[in-house]
Amino acid sequence: MPTQHISSTDLLSMEQRYRAAFINSLGGFKSLCMIGTKNKAQHTNLAIFNSIVHIGANPALIGFIVRPDSVERHTLENILETNYYTINHLNETNYKQAHQTSARYARETSEFEACGLTEEYLNQFHAPYVKESQIKLGLELKNKVDLTINGTILIIGQVVDIYIPENSIEKDGFVNIEKCGTITGSGLDAYYHTKKIARLAYAKPNIAPIVI
Amino acid sequence: MPTQHISSTDLLSMEQRYRAAFINSLGGFKSLCMIGTKNKAQHTNLAIFNSIVHIGANPALIGFIVRPDSVERHTLENILETNYYTINHLNETNYKQAHQTSARYARETSEFEACGLTEEYLNQFHAPYVKESQIKLGLELKNKVDLTINGTILIIGQVVDIYIPENSIEKDGFVNIEKCGTITGSGLDAYYHTKKIARLAYAKPNIAPIVI
Repeated sequence: MPTQHISSTDLLSMEQRYRAAFINSLGGFKSLCMIGTKNKAQHTNLAIFNSIVHIGANPALIGFIVRPDSVERHTLENILETNYYTINHLNETNYKQAHQTSARYARETSEFEACGLTEEYLNQFHAPYVKESQIKLGLELKNKVDLTINGTILIIGQVVDIYIPENSIEKDGFVNIEKCGTITGSGLDAYYHTKKIARLAYAKPNIAPIVI
Repeated sequence: MPTQHISSTDLLSMEQRYRAAFINSLGGFKSLCMIGTKNKAQHTNLAIFNSIVHIGANPALIGFIVRPDSVERHTLENILETNYYTINHLNETNYKQAHQTSARYARETSEFEACGLTEEYLNQFHAPYVKESQIKLGLELKNKVDLTINGTILIIGQVVDIYIPENSIEKDGFVNIEKCGTITGSGLDAYYHTKKIARLAYAKPNIAPIVI
Protein backbone atom coordinates (compact mmCIF):
# COMPACT_ATOMS: atom_id res chain seq x y z
CA MET A 1 0.00 0.00 0.00
CA PRO A 2 1.50 3.43 -0.87
CA THR A 3 2.48 5.49 2.14
CA GLN A 4 1.58 9.05 2.96
CA HIS A 5 4.01 11.27 4.92
CA ILE A 6 2.66 13.91 7.28
CA SER A 7 5.22 16.32 8.72
CA SER A 8 5.10 18.52 11.80
CA THR A 9 4.46 21.45 9.45
CA ASP A 10 1.41 19.64 8.06
CA LEU A 11 0.17 19.10 11.64
CA LEU A 12 0.36 22.83 12.36
CA SER A 13 -1.84 23.63 9.38
CA MET A 14 -4.63 21.24 10.39
CA GLU A 15 -7.91 22.63 11.73
CA GLN A 16 -8.08 22.07 15.50
CA ARG A 17 -10.80 19.39 15.68
CA TYR A 18 -9.39 17.59 12.64
CA ARG A 19 -5.96 17.50 14.30
CA ALA A 20 -7.43 16.24 17.60
CA ALA A 21 -9.18 13.37 15.78
CA PHE A 22 -6.02 12.65 13.77
CA ILE A 23 -3.49 12.64 16.63
CA ASN A 24 -5.83 10.68 18.90
CA SER A 25 -5.87 7.90 16.27
CA LEU A 26 -2.10 7.45 16.03
CA GLY A 27 -1.30 5.68 19.31
CA GLY A 28 -3.22 2.53 18.41
CA PHE A 29 -6.26 0.95 20.08
CA LYS A 30 -6.95 2.19 23.58
CA SER A 31 -8.10 1.08 26.98
CA LEU A 32 -11.57 2.49 27.56
CA CYS A 33 -13.22 2.88 30.93
CA MET A 34 -15.66 4.91 32.95
CA ILE A 35 -14.34 6.50 36.12
CA GLY A 36 -16.88 6.83 38.93
CA THR A 37 -16.49 9.31 41.80
CA LYS A 38 -18.54 10.92 44.59
CA ASN A 39 -17.67 14.17 46.36
CA LYS A 40 -18.14 14.91 50.07
CA ALA A 41 -21.55 16.47 49.35
CA GLN A 42 -22.55 13.01 47.97
CA HIS A 43 -22.82 14.17 44.34
CA THR A 44 -21.72 11.42 41.99
CA ASN A 45 -19.90 11.79 38.70
CA LEU A 46 -19.09 9.43 35.87
CA ALA A 47 -16.78 10.08 32.91
CA ILE A 48 -15.31 8.08 30.05
CA PHE A 49 -11.50 7.96 29.72
CA ASN A 50 -9.30 6.46 27.02
CA SER A 51 -5.93 7.10 28.65
CA ILE A 52 -5.63 4.22 31.12
CA VAL A 53 -2.08 2.93 31.49
CA HIS A 54 -0.53 0.10 33.53
CA ILE A 55 2.07 1.47 35.98
CA GLY A 56 2.97 -1.59 38.04
CA ALA A 57 1.80 -4.95 39.37
CA ASN A 58 3.25 -4.91 42.90
CA PRO A 59 1.85 -2.71 44.25
CA ALA A 60 -0.98 -2.81 41.69
CA LEU A 61 -0.91 0.67 40.14
CA ILE A 62 -2.95 2.06 37.25
CA GLY A 63 -2.63 5.58 35.81
CA PHE A 64 -4.74 7.83 33.63
CA ILE A 65 -4.37 11.28 32.07
CA VAL A 66 -6.77 14.13 32.92
CA ARG A 67 -7.27 17.34 30.96
CA PRO A 68 -8.26 19.83 33.69
CA ASP A 69 -9.90 22.28 31.27
CA SER A 70 -12.51 19.73 30.18
CA VAL A 71 -15.48 17.86 31.62
CA GLU A 72 -12.86 15.58 33.14
CA ARG A 73 -12.20 18.20 35.82
CA HIS A 74 -15.21 17.04 37.89
CA THR A 75 -13.66 13.59 38.11
CA LEU A 76 -10.34 15.12 39.15
CA GLU A 77 -11.91 17.37 41.80
CA ASN A 78 -13.80 14.47 43.35
CA ILE A 79 -10.73 12.23 43.44
CA LEU A 80 -8.61 14.93 45.06
CA GLU A 81 -11.37 15.61 47.60
CA THR A 82 -12.01 11.99 48.61
CA ASN A 83 -9.01 9.89 47.41
CA TYR A 84 -11.22 7.13 45.99
CA TYR A 85 -12.55 6.26 42.52
CA THR A 86 -13.66 3.32 40.42
CA ILE A 87 -12.58 2.10 36.98
CA ASN A 88 -15.35 0.29 35.06
CA HIS A 89 -14.93 -1.51 31.73
CA LEU A 90 -16.99 -0.80 28.62
CA ASN A 91 -18.94 -3.50 26.83
CA GLU A 92 -21.44 -3.63 23.99
CA THR A 93 -24.40 -2.97 26.27
CA ASN A 94 -23.07 0.18 27.96
CA TYR A 95 -20.73 1.88 25.43
CA LYS A 96 -23.33 4.36 24.15
CA GLN A 97 -24.13 5.48 27.68
CA ALA A 98 -20.39 5.61 28.43
CA HIS A 99 -19.82 7.84 25.37
CA GLN A 100 -22.67 10.08 26.49
CA THR A 101 -20.86 10.82 29.78
CA SER A 102 -18.45 12.96 27.72
CA ALA A 103 -21.16 15.58 27.16
CA ARG A 104 -20.77 18.82 29.12
CA TYR A 105 -23.23 18.24 31.92
CA ALA A 106 -23.52 20.80 34.73
CA ARG A 107 -21.59 20.18 37.96
CA GLU A 108 -24.72 19.19 39.89
CA THR A 109 -25.87 16.65 37.29
CA SER A 110 -24.88 13.04 37.88
CA GLU A 111 -23.93 11.36 34.61
CA PHE A 112 -25.18 8.08 36.08
CA GLU A 113 -28.74 9.34 35.99
CA ALA A 114 -28.38 11.57 32.92
CA CYS A 115 -26.86 8.78 30.80
CA GLY A 116 -28.90 5.83 32.07
CA LEU A 117 -26.33 3.94 34.14
CA THR A 118 -26.73 2.56 37.67
CA GLU A 119 -24.63 3.42 40.73
CA GLU A 120 -23.53 0.37 42.66
CA TYR A 121 -21.90 0.44 46.11
CA LEU A 122 -19.83 -2.58 47.12
CA ASN A 123 -18.09 -3.46 50.39
CA GLN A 124 -18.34 0.05 51.88
CA PHE A 125 -16.21 1.57 49.12
CA HIS A 126 -16.80 5.34 48.94
CA ALA A 127 -17.01 5.70 45.15
CA PRO A 128 -19.79 4.28 42.98
CA TYR A 129 -19.20 1.40 40.58
CA VAL A 130 -21.14 1.03 37.34
CA LYS A 131 -23.61 -1.84 37.74
CA GLU A 132 -23.69 -2.35 33.95
CA SER A 133 -19.91 -3.01 33.77
CA GLN A 134 -18.67 -6.59 34.00
CA ILE A 135 -15.17 -5.69 35.26
CA LYS A 136 -14.83 -3.03 37.96
CA LEU A 137 -11.91 -1.85 40.04
CA GLY A 138 -11.84 0.22 43.23
CA LEU A 139 -8.78 2.49 43.50
CA GLU A 140 -7.14 4.68 46.11
CA LEU A 141 -5.29 7.79 44.90
CA LYS A 142 -1.52 7.49 45.38
CA ASN A 143 0.06 10.19 43.20
CA LYS A 144 -0.88 13.28 41.22
CA VAL A 145 1.82 14.10 38.69
CA ASP A 146 1.60 17.45 36.90
CA LEU A 147 2.79 17.19 33.31
CA THR A 148 4.05 20.72 32.85
CA ILE A 149 4.58 20.30 29.11
CA ASN A 150 0.86 20.79 28.38
CA GLY A 151 -0.94 21.17 31.72
CA THR A 152 -2.37 17.65 31.81
CA ILE A 153 -2.16 15.52 34.94
CA LEU A 154 -1.25 11.88 35.47
CA ILE A 155 -3.32 10.35 38.26
CA ILE A 156 -1.90 7.13 39.74
CA GLY A 157 -4.03 4.93 41.96
CA GLN A 158 -3.60 1.62 43.73
CA VAL A 159 -6.12 -1.12 42.96
CA VAL A 160 -7.71 -2.19 46.24
CA ASP A 161 -10.82 -4.09 45.10
CA ILE A 162 -11.49 -6.06 41.93
CA TYR A 163 -14.80 -7.44 40.67
CA ILE A 164 -14.73 -9.77 37.67
CA PRO A 165 -17.03 -12.47 36.35
CA GLU A 166 -16.42 -15.88 37.89
CA ASN A 167 -14.25 -18.25 35.88
CA SER A 168 -12.63 -15.45 33.87
CA ILE A 169 -9.13 -15.95 35.35
CA GLU A 170 -7.01 -18.46 33.41
CA LYS A 171 -4.61 -20.68 35.30
CA ASP A 172 -1.59 -18.38 34.94
CA GLY A 173 -3.44 -15.29 36.24
CA PHE A 174 -4.43 -13.89 32.81
CA VAL A 175 -7.98 -12.52 32.79
CA ASN A 176 -9.92 -13.27 29.62
CA ILE A 177 -11.40 -9.78 29.22
CA GLU A 178 -12.62 -10.60 25.70
CA LYS A 179 -14.80 -13.40 27.12
CA CYS A 180 -16.04 -10.89 29.72
CA GLY A 181 -17.23 -8.59 26.91
CA THR A 182 -14.72 -5.74 27.28
CA ILE A 183 -14.40 -3.62 24.14
CA THR A 184 -11.67 -1.30 22.88
CA GLY A 185 -11.57 2.07 21.14
CA SER A 186 -9.70 4.27 18.70
CA GLY A 187 -9.53 8.01 18.30
CA LEU A 188 -12.16 9.91 20.25
CA ASP A 189 -15.32 8.09 19.26
CA ALA A 190 -14.78 4.65 17.65
CA TYR A 191 -15.66 1.41 19.46
CA TYR A 192 -14.58 -2.15 18.60
CA HIS A 193 -15.05 -5.79 19.51
CA THR A 194 -11.98 -7.96 19.57
CA LYS A 195 -11.19 -11.39 18.19
CA LYS A 196 -8.24 -13.23 19.65
CA ILE A 197 -5.34 -14.07 17.34
CA ALA A 198 -3.11 -15.82 19.90
CA ARG A 199 -1.33 -15.74 23.21
CA LEU A 200 2.43 -16.18 22.93
CA ALA A 201 4.77 -17.80 25.45
CA TYR A 202 7.30 -15.74 27.44
CA ALA A 203 9.97 -14.81 24.86
CA LYS A 204 13.54 -16.11 25.13
CA PRO A 205 16.51 -15.34 22.85
CA ASN A 206 16.99 -17.83 20.00
CA ILE A 207 13.67 -19.61 20.55
CA ALA A 208 10.96 -18.84 17.98
CA PRO A 209 7.67 -17.43 19.37
CA ILE A 210 5.33 -20.19 20.61
CA VAL A 211 1.53 -19.96 20.61
CA ILE A 212 0.12 -21.04 24.00
CA MET B 1 -22.87 -13.91 35.41
CA PRO B 2 -21.86 -14.35 39.10
CA THR B 3 -19.11 -11.99 40.21
CA GLN B 4 -15.88 -12.79 41.99
CA HIS B 5 -14.34 -10.28 44.43
CA ILE B 6 -10.57 -10.06 44.76
CA SER B 7 -9.29 -7.88 47.62
CA SER B 8 -5.92 -6.23 48.14
CA THR B 9 -5.15 -9.01 50.63
CA ASP B 10 -5.79 -11.59 47.90
CA LEU B 11 -3.41 -9.69 45.61
CA LEU B 12 -0.63 -9.89 48.19
CA SER B 13 -0.92 -13.65 48.41
CA MET B 14 -0.60 -14.20 44.64
CA GLU B 15 2.60 -15.69 43.21
CA GLN B 16 4.62 -12.94 41.49
CA ARG B 17 4.22 -13.98 37.84
CA TYR B 18 0.56 -14.85 38.36
CA ARG B 19 -0.05 -11.40 39.86
CA ALA B 20 1.80 -9.69 36.99
CA ALA B 21 -0.39 -11.50 34.43
CA PHE B 22 -3.51 -10.73 36.47
CA ILE B 23 -2.92 -7.01 37.08
CA ASN B 24 -1.75 -6.44 33.51
CA SER B 25 -5.15 -7.73 32.33
CA LEU B 26 -7.29 -5.36 34.36
CA GLY B 27 -6.81 -2.06 32.53
CA GLY B 28 -8.53 -3.26 29.36
CA PHE B 29 -7.18 -3.65 25.83
CA LYS B 30 -3.92 -1.85 25.18
CA SER B 31 -2.05 0.11 22.57
CA LEU B 32 0.79 -2.05 21.29
CA CYS B 33 3.84 -0.77 19.47
CA MET B 34 7.49 -1.36 18.81
CA ILE B 35 9.87 1.45 19.75
CA GLY B 36 12.95 1.76 17.53
CA THR B 37 16.15 3.53 18.66
CA LYS B 38 19.81 3.85 17.68
CA ASN B 39 22.62 4.95 19.98
CA LYS B 40 25.57 7.17 19.05
CA ALA B 41 27.69 4.09 18.34
CA GLN B 42 25.04 3.20 15.67
CA HIS B 43 23.72 0.14 17.50
CA THR B 44 19.99 -0.22 16.93
CA ASN B 45 17.41 -1.50 19.37
CA LEU B 46 13.76 -2.49 19.05
CA ALA B 47 11.35 -3.27 21.89
CA ILE B 48 7.64 -3.93 22.26
CA PHE B 49 5.64 -1.68 24.60
CA ASN B 50 2.03 -1.85 25.72
CA SER B 51 1.91 1.38 27.71
CA ILE B 52 1.40 4.01 25.01
CA VAL B 53 -0.81 6.89 26.14
CA HIS B 54 -2.10 10.02 24.38
CA ILE B 55 -0.90 13.17 26.16
CA GLY B 56 -2.06 15.94 23.83
CA ALA B 57 -2.89 16.90 20.25
CA ASN B 58 -1.38 20.39 20.02
CA PRO B 59 1.52 19.97 20.35
CA ALA B 60 1.16 16.31 19.36
CA LEU B 61 2.44 14.43 22.41
CA ILE B 62 2.52 10.69 23.12
CA GLY B 63 3.80 9.07 26.32
CA PHE B 64 4.89 5.60 27.37
CA ILE B 65 6.02 3.93 30.59
CA VAL B 66 9.48 2.34 30.92
CA ARG B 67 10.57 -0.13 33.59
CA PRO B 68 14.31 0.62 33.91
CA ASP B 69 15.16 -2.74 35.46
CA SER B 70 14.02 -4.66 32.36
CA VAL B 71 15.03 -5.13 28.72
CA GLU B 72 13.29 -1.79 28.19
CA ARG B 73 16.35 -0.02 29.65
CA HIS B 74 18.21 -0.22 26.31
CA THR B 75 15.40 1.73 24.67
CA LEU B 76 15.53 4.30 27.47
CA GLU B 77 19.32 4.68 27.29
CA ASN B 78 19.23 5.23 23.54
CA ILE B 79 16.44 7.81 23.75
CA LEU B 80 18.23 9.76 26.49
CA GLU B 81 21.47 9.64 24.48
CA THR B 82 20.02 10.76 21.14
CA ASN B 83 16.56 12.33 21.82
CA TYR B 84 14.87 10.48 18.92
CA TYR B 85 12.82 7.31 18.60
CA THR B 86 10.12 5.73 16.48
CA ILE B 87 6.73 4.22 17.36
CA ASN B 88 5.63 1.43 14.98
CA HIS B 89 2.25 -0.31 14.99
CA LEU B 90 1.75 -4.05 15.25
CA ASN B 91 -0.22 -6.01 12.69
CA GLU B 92 -0.92 -9.67 12.00
CA THR B 93 2.23 -10.10 9.91
CA ASN B 94 4.73 -8.73 12.48
CA TYR B 95 3.26 -9.42 15.93
CA LYS B 96 5.25 -12.59 16.58
CA GLN B 97 8.49 -10.81 15.75
CA ALA B 98 7.35 -7.88 17.89
CA HIS B 99 6.67 -10.20 20.83
CA GLN B 100 10.09 -11.77 20.37
CA THR B 101 11.77 -8.37 20.95
CA SER B 102 10.81 -8.77 24.63
CA ALA B 103 13.41 -11.54 25.05
CA ARG B 104 16.52 -10.59 27.03
CA TYR B 105 18.96 -10.03 24.19
CA ALA B 106 22.47 -8.78 24.97
CA ARG B 107 23.17 -5.05 24.66
CA GLU B 108 25.13 -5.45 21.41
CA THR B 109 22.41 -7.53 19.71
CA SER B 110 19.97 -5.63 17.49
CA GLU B 111 16.45 -7.00 17.92
CA PHE B 112 15.77 -6.00 14.31
CA GLU B 113 18.16 -8.68 13.08
CA ALA B 114 17.58 -11.16 15.90
CA CYS B 115 13.79 -11.07 15.48
CA GLY B 116 13.55 -10.81 11.70
CA LEU B 117 12.43 -7.22 11.21
CA THR B 118 13.87 -4.61 8.85
CA GLU B 119 15.34 -1.22 9.78
CA GLU B 120 14.04 1.58 7.61
CA TYR B 121 15.44 5.14 7.55
CA LEU B 122 13.15 7.89 6.28
CA ASN B 123 13.79 11.59 5.66
CA GLN B 124 17.11 11.72 7.56
CA PHE B 125 15.43 10.77 10.85
CA HIS B 126 18.04 9.39 13.28
CA ALA B 127 16.06 6.44 14.65
CA PRO B 128 15.08 3.37 12.63
CA TYR B 129 11.47 2.68 11.66
CA VAL B 130 10.12 -0.86 11.25
CA LYS B 131 9.63 -1.53 7.54
CA GLU B 132 7.01 -4.21 8.33
CA SER B 133 4.77 -1.73 10.21
CA GLN B 134 2.01 0.05 8.33
CA ILE B 135 1.78 3.05 10.69
CA LYS B 136 5.01 4.62 11.96
CA LEU B 137 5.73 7.76 13.92
CA GLY B 138 8.99 9.64 14.45
CA LEU B 139 9.25 11.33 17.86
CA GLU B 140 11.52 13.79 19.61
CA LEU B 141 11.97 13.41 23.39
CA LYS B 142 10.37 16.27 25.30
CA ASN B 143 10.08 15.12 28.93
CA LYS B 144 11.31 12.37 31.24
CA VAL B 145 9.08 12.12 34.29
CA ASP B 146 10.28 9.90 37.15
CA LEU B 147 7.37 8.15 38.85
CA THR B 148 8.82 7.83 42.31
CA ILE B 149 6.03 5.57 43.53
CA ASN B 150 7.58 2.50 41.86
CA GLY B 151 10.67 3.65 39.96
CA THR B 152 9.09 3.60 36.53
CA ILE B 153 9.52 6.49 34.09
CA LEU B 154 7.06 8.28 31.84
CA ILE B 155 8.70 9.31 28.57
CA ILE B 156 6.87 12.03 26.63
CA GLY B 157 7.74 12.75 23.01
CA GLN B 158 6.47 15.06 20.32
CA VAL B 159 5.37 13.48 17.04
CA VAL B 160 7.39 15.07 14.24
CA ASP B 161 6.86 12.63 11.33
CA ILE B 162 3.95 10.36 10.53
CA TYR B 163 3.78 7.60 7.91
CA ILE B 164 0.41 6.00 7.24
CA PRO B 165 -1.13 4.16 4.31
CA GLU B 166 -2.66 6.44 1.70
CA ASN B 167 -6.43 6.94 1.97
CA SER B 168 -6.56 5.90 5.62
CA ILE B 169 -7.57 9.36 6.92
CA GLU B 170 -11.34 9.90 7.02
CA LYS B 171 -12.74 13.32 6.26
CA ASP B 172 -12.81 14.51 9.88
CA GLY B 173 -9.17 13.55 10.58
CA PHE B 174 -9.90 10.11 12.10
CA VAL B 175 -7.41 7.48 10.93
CA ASN B 176 -8.97 4.09 10.22
CA ILE B 177 -6.27 2.04 11.97
CA GLU B 178 -8.39 -1.10 11.77
CA LYS B 179 -8.36 -0.88 7.96
CA CYS B 180 -4.59 -0.36 8.18
CA GLY B 181 -4.28 -3.69 10.03
CA THR B 182 -3.32 -2.43 13.49
CA ILE B 183 -4.00 -4.98 16.24
CA THR B 184 -4.48 -4.64 19.99
CA GLY B 185 -3.40 -6.60 23.06
CA SER B 186 -4.30 -7.64 26.57
CA GLY B 187 -2.19 -8.68 29.52
CA LEU B 188 1.43 -9.40 28.67
CA ASP B 189 1.07 -11.77 25.74
CA ALA B 190 -2.39 -11.80 24.09
CA TYR B 191 -3.00 -10.32 20.63
CA TYR B 192 -6.33 -9.45 18.99
CA HIS B 193 -7.93 -8.27 15.76
CA THR B 194 -10.71 -5.74 16.05
CA LYS B 195 -14.14 -5.45 14.49
CA LYS B 196 -15.78 -2.05 14.48
CA ILE B 197 -19.04 -1.64 16.38
CA ALA B 198 -19.63 2.06 15.65
CA ARG B 199 -18.37 5.59 15.72
CA LEU B 200 -20.53 7.94 17.78
CA ALA B 201 -21.10 11.66 17.23
CA TYR B 202 -19.69 14.28 19.63
CA ALA B 203 -21.85 13.95 22.75
CA LYS B 204 -24.15 16.75 23.90
CA PRO B 205 -26.37 16.86 27.00
CA ASN B 206 -29.94 15.69 26.41
CA ILE B 207 -29.27 14.31 22.92
CA ALA B 208 -29.11 10.53 22.66
CA PRO B 209 -25.86 9.05 21.23
CA ILE B 210 -25.85 9.05 17.41
CA VAL B 211 -23.99 6.52 15.25
CA ILE B 212 -21.97 8.29 12.52
